Amino acid sequence: MSRFDIDLASPPPADPESVRVIALGGLGEIGRNMTLFEYRGKILIVDCGVLFPEDEQPGVDLILPDFRYLDDRMDDIVGLVLTHGHEDHIGAVPYLLRRRNDIPLLGSTFTLALLKAKLKEHRIAPVTVEVREGDAEQLGPFDLEFLAVNHSIPDALAVFIKTGAGTVLHTGDFKMDQLPLDGRITDLRAFARAGEEGVDLFLTDSTNSDVPGFTALEKDIGKVLEDLFAHAERRIIVASFASHVHRVQQVLEAASAHGRKVALVGRSMVRNMRIAQELGYLKVPPGTLIDLKHVDDYPDDQIVLMSTGSQGEPMAALSRMASGDHRVEIGQGDTIILASSLIPGNENAVYRVINGLMRLGANVIHKGNAKVHVSGHASAGELLYCYNIVRPRAVMPVHGEVRHLLANGELARQTGVPENRIVLAENGWVVDMVKGVPDVVGAVECGMVFVDGSSVGEITEADLKDRLVLAGEGFVSIVLAVDTSNGALLAGPDIHVRGVAENDAVFDDIKPKIAQAVAEAVQENKADQHQLQQVVRRTVGRWVGGKLRRRPMIVPTVVLV
Amino acid sequence: MSRFDIDLASPPPADPESVRVIALGGLGEIGRNMTLFEYRGKILIVDCGVLFPEDEQPGVDLILPDFRYLDDRMDDIVGLVLTHGHEDHIGAVPYLLRRRNDIPLLGSTFTLALLKAKLKEHRIAPVTVEVREGDAEQLGPFDLEFLAVNHSIPDALAVFIKTGAGTVLHTGDFKMDQLPLDGRITDLRAFARAGEEGVDLFLTDSTNSDVPGFTALEKDIGKVLEDLFAHAERRIIVASFASHVHRVQQVLEAASAHGRKVALVGRSMVRNMRIAQELGYLKVPPGTLIDLKHVDDYPDDQIVLMSTGSQGEPMAALSRMASGDHRVEIGQGDTIILASSLIPGNENAVYRVINGLMRLGANVIHKGNAKVHVSGHASAGELLYCYNIVRPRAVMPVHGEVRHLLANGELARQTGVPENRIVLAENGWVVDMVKGVPDVVGAVECGMVFVDGSSVGEITEADLKDRLVLAGEGFVSIVLAVDTSNGALLAGPDIHVRGVAENDAVFDDIKPKIAQAVAEAVQENKADQHQLQQVVRRTVGRWVGGKLRRRPMIVPTVVLV
Repeated sequence: MSRFDIDLASPPPADPESVRVIALGGLGEIGRNMTLFEYRGKILIVDCGVLFPEDEQPGVDLILPDFRYLDDRMDDIVGLVLTHGHEDHIGAVPYLLRRRNDIPLLGSTFTLALLKAKLKEHRIAPVTVEVREGDAEQLGPFDLEFLAVNHSIPDALAVFIKTGAGTVLHTGDFKMDQLPLDGRITDLRAFARAGEEGVDLFLTDSTNSDVPGFTALEKDIGKVLEDLFAHAERRIIVASFASHVHRVQQVLEAASAHGRKVALVGRSMVRNMRIAQELGYLKVPPGTLIDLKHVDDYPDDQIVLMSTGSQGEPMAALSRMASGDHRVEIGQGDTIILASSLIPGNENAVYRVINGLMRLGANVIHKGNAKVHVSGHASAGELLYCYNIVRPRAVMPVHGEVRHLLANGELARQTGVPENRIVLAENGWVVDMVKGVPDVVGAVECGMVFVDGSSVGEITEADLKDRLVLAGEGFVSIVLAVDTSNGALLAGPDIHVRGVAENDAVFDDIKPKIAQAVAEAVQENKADQHQLQQVVRRTVGRWVGGKLRRRPMIVPTVVLV
Repeated sequence: MSRFDIDLASPPPADPESVRVIALGGLGEIGRNMTLFEYRGKILIVDCGVLFPEDEQPGVDLILPDFRYLDDRMDDIVGLVLTHGHEDHIGAVPYLLRRRNDIPLLGSTFTLALLKAKLKEHRIAPVTVEVREGDAEQLGPFDLEFLAVNHSIPDALAVFIKTGAGTVLHTGDFKMDQLPLDGRITDLRAFARAGEEGVDLFLTDSTNSDVPGFTALEKDIGKVLEDLFAHAERRIIVASFASHVHRVQQVLEAASAHGRKVALVGRSMVRNMRIAQELGYLKVPPGTLIDLKHVDDYPDDQIVLMSTGSQGEPMAALSRMASGDHRVEIGQGDTIILASSLIPGNENAVYRVINGLMRLGANVIHKGNAKVHVSGHASAGELLYCYNIVRPRAVMPVHGEVRHLLANGELARQTGVPENRIVLAENGWVVDMVKGVPDVVGAVECGMVFVDGSSVGEITEADLKDRLVLAGEGFVSIVLAVDTSNGALLAGPDIHVRGVAENDAVFDDIKPKIAQAVAEAVQENKADQHQLQQVVRRTVGRWVGGKLRRRPMIVPTVVLV
């Protein structure tokens, strides 16, 4: 297997008889999946998603793939395939289309429906090509074939890409539930056919590659819900992901079986389920769905609320219920079911919500104490099946942190893929496949692109460092006006502190020291604004460090008069 | 069981024939455990620990129990019992002793040794009383008896408190490993004796009360370590908690069995293990321990590093190794064992370390993929044994978030404790036990006390809110000097932004608007500094909100000339 800790130079120009593969996101991270395939000067893109920020990126709304490599190649793009409708696969499409809005978007009915709703909010009218499993499409020099895969959202696709220089099978996100609610299984017969045709490079979902065994059936959750619904005495509130149509389907069925009405809560939940219902992916038992505003017309034991907020998002309905800040008041005997995963990093927020709900007397069911969630990703056991059915010549694990990519590569190795045909790469690495054999030939620049409010890519790592300093230490602002003829202060120093463990008055002590330091600097002819600001910064910094043992950001402004 | 969501008034004066119980920390949280027992005007304290901050408390070093209730009662304190030496039980002692340094501190040999080392750093010479299991002590009107309990640190004690108004058994933190390394089991015979004497109120550790079954044996980890050591080809690095003497003991034994030397890494690890060795709690196989600076004298396959940093703490040795910023360079074939829990909230930091180590070629073993950690707390099954052996008349779960306290209360209920004798309380609630029957009678003020640098309790919730705004949005500082006679600007506006997704120049557009707004205000006679600053704040705030869709902190300074 390749090693991660190497330095790579710029890649050579692409060989026209090679397929060049570059991931601009999704390697070394769970999210912002985006992979480019380049052949004979044309570029095919698979997925274009967002990554959600961590604590180390305060205030960031979203993180995008780095499109820089495409800057002068926008017209070479022949199409963008969206494997399914999750945000980490479609969320960055609006930002790519801002650069060229007529890139053909290929996807299944449900995927495109969700994508179009998103693009409408961005006022973008896209060019779309609806495809389904079994379909073939030609995009420039790429022949595509779409294969059904099962995932935690309906209508997901894998794509088989055929070129004169080799073939690539890209699974997208998938698992292999053998009894899915909609009967649409991952099409292993089609995987086998592709394998017999010959798969030179197999890109597979690594998310659960370090989880032993097999992902349980979605259907099993239905039985658990049935049982919980049978014993619930008052209201039931279920929280899950807003795109998890089958999870909502099972809630609707359990509700219907127990004579309860379901109201959807949360903007994205309402929007997605309306789309799913219109397109026939969600089958609502007659009379089961009601509008949230009619909930009070029914007794508590006839109500189910199906809500977002399963990750403890502070503004979501569930968090607001937990803190008593929502029109739905939680009380003794209510049953809350978190039918969702617990995404790493969200633990404290989720436990805060659980504690808040329990404090109000609710019975809280979650994956820690009942089988109310199954993952959407193939575990190690399923991936072994895939490798043995496809028998790829080479493998490139995608969609995962380093630990997941390595675990997935190890599974490929165990099924007989030679170590030197297992490509472990990072975002931006350039993998050239010549005569069907992949090799890392260099890397292109590929960083983090932060969306913050209306700005895209303007916030830098340095800004985030500033923010972390401000968060940890606060700041001290010092303003003064100096008579440059003699160094006397005409106004100030005015000192304001925020986020520092002291009130402004504590800083009165330092004011004479500042005046003295400024006067001395002027006498020594260090009297321009920059120099004087440095003097103030140093004087205050030393004092704060020594006396308060803190290192806040120090912001001096010297006005010269 | 009592309900949490009630408002409580100040308590009535204590009845001399009651035992008053007040937790100043440890209820509704995992940490800063501290419980007061008040009888006939005297106060006995059990534990005085710290809580570690979460993301919502940026820059905070520690959180202390709220000592306000003790402000005018310091002289009534007859003693402070420390059940064991973990930070969440002893960490706040220095801060309490700053208020009265001769409070008698009672604890076992190892607990007091760790505490004294800590107090020495704070330059405090304490009054200590060393006790051991079986000992009895009288402190004012309290008769105490100490019982051995097993925990993830040696020499932990429970305390049986007897007064004329009832008895209390407080477990401290504990579990019931039946084959502990030191043979020192939780003394259920003593628990049974206390039960026969009569336990009016039983305070029990709730940390793992929602975990079904039984906590596994510490000893089982030894076998797993043996197996890992047998197959490791290069260096082995084990990370765990710096006070986990038995975990380190097992590492030493596995190392010795495989001809490896062990070097301790991390200041607290070195200090605690020196103490443990001196007092005989750690038994070092002859010739096994070496100093870190001699590691390079041995081949890689004869070395074990025993390190701190198992929670992904960025400054700890392990994190620095993962980012290539430590003298120990990680390479292909190294084995890293995280023999520790994963404390909620630390997931991202720990996975960052794991990914970094794997990226460098290391094989990383952690509780997710091997049995290299067991908890130090009793699971639900063990707590049931306790309740059945003690048969308490009433129960008050301590040491846990709301979800843990409720789960623990439910276990008590299942063993037959009447619901109205299960006290679910919050920090500051006043529980009076009259004739052996506890009842919530009110609450005292009890908040969060933040330690930040050298300041204690000066940082407020408002400061933290400021910090979170600064973290999420950054700030904009605007400085200008105004001629108050006509509203003309004499200097500025100088605009500086930090942590905002734009550079300073973006703000040039707003400068004429500020000048105009200030001039207008002066003409309207709104010309004092506060009014003009408000004008500037509003002008900039509107512009930033509209144009950048951000809400940074806006810090205007107007100098009047």
